[in-house]
Amino acid sequence: MKVSARNVFNGRVSQVQAGAVNAEVVLTLPGGEQLVAVVTMESIRNLGIAVGKDAVALIKAPWVMLMTESSDIRLSARNCLEGKVLSVNDGAVNAEVVIELAGGSKVYSIVTRDAVAELGLVPGVGATAVIKASHIILGVRG
Amino acid sequence: MKVSARNVFNGRVSQVQAGAVNAEVVLTLPGGEQLVAVVTMESIRNLGIAVGKDAVALIKAPWVMLMTESSDIRLSARNCLEGKVLSVNDGAVNAEVVIELAGGSKVYSIVTRDAVAELGLVPGVGATAVIKASHIILGVRG
Amino acid sequence: MKVSARNVFNGRVSQVQAGAVNAEVVLTLPGGEQLVAVVTMESIRNLGIAVGKDAVALIKAPWVMLMTESSDIRLSARNCLEGKVLSVNDGAVNAEVVIELAGGSKVYSIVTRDAVAELGLVPGVGATAVIKASHIILGVRG
Repeated sequence: MKVSARNVFNGRVSQVQAGAVNAEVVLTLPGGEQLVAVVTMESIRNLGIAVGKDAVALIKAPWVMLMTESSDIRLSARNCLEGKVLSVNDGAVNAEVVIELAGGSKVYSIVTRDAVAELGLVPGVGATAVIKASHIILGVRG
Repeated sequence: MKVSARNVFNGRVSQVQAGAVNAEVVLTLPGGEQLVAVVTMESIRNLGIAVGKDAVALIKAPWVMLMTESSDIRLSARNCLEGKVLSVNDGAVNAEVVIELAGGSKVYSIVTRDAVAELGLVPGVGATAVIKASHIILGVRG
Repeated sequence: MKVSARNVFNGRVSQVQAGAVNAEVVLTLPGGEQLVAVVTMESIRNLGIAVGKDAVALIKAPWVMLMTESSDIRLSARNCLEGKVLSVNDGAVNAEVVIELAGGSKVYSIVTRDAVAELGLVPGVGATAVIKASHIILGVRG
């Protein structure tokens, strides 16, 4: 498998909560971080997703929001990953910002250039990568 | 809090409809407009989201679709905000288009340059900003 | 209706599965391909979405992930559309890639330039367009 998604996280399913149409799946990464994904129940059945099973989380860079000075707010987004800016690659309208998490994982985000300026995103600055659970695609190998 | 999301709307929760995994939350803005967001029940509990509580809706610009000549169609997207094009900032592939709503709120959208040309998006033209409820992140301050 | 979404698929509703907050809708396209969308139950009621009804699926290009060498993985994303790369239009950070499906339908995707290089996306190469059901907006004309 090769995917255009800049974010590919391998982990193990540690929790599944079933609903009528959707289910919430928790994936624990090797470094201990957890990702929460919401997928359809049909996918749970088709992929045989269950606690203990290896899975991969795929997240496109434009689905990742960045946040700084986050101490005064709590978000509905289930995934708030704290790290530091590793690199910024500017385009005309958008910029690609890479965040390095404490455990060394990298999170790729596409944000506007205006956002880069407003948040003062330069290498070394602390930032939180925010990802909605419903924006994560799960994959099962084999 | 500083976020890369170009759209930050402050409002008050006016309705919460609970499901098994997800809940639908209606946020009423100061100008009377309503935004509908779908978030997980876990977030509802963690953030203490309830009717009467202040909250903020965060929406990244690439999650906003634009529409013109909308009289002949109805969409499943719960948020269709009518306004006028305020500005267009072209990149190589994408363009940032700002829509000003009747109440003065601004909605930022990233669309392709081809879309700007096809829809004839220039300042002053009427356009509808379309946002899926599941693309909105809610935040609670404090 | 004119929309900024690069992907507009006309079809007929062939299945609706209701949940508490969300519903899963299957849209069958004229060529026989199926698209699965997740929308809120409120939208199902407002639009009168039911089996046999004509509807249109709208998908913004940044919501489409591309995949190659997909034989070793199964994804939670309900929509995996196989085709060949028709064109690649490079920007500074992003690129627009058009995939042509077997039946002739075109799927537009915005991915990073790095992804285009890594996946070797050039005209003629086989690729799968991956779309989460919750990223599809449904429309009903009239």
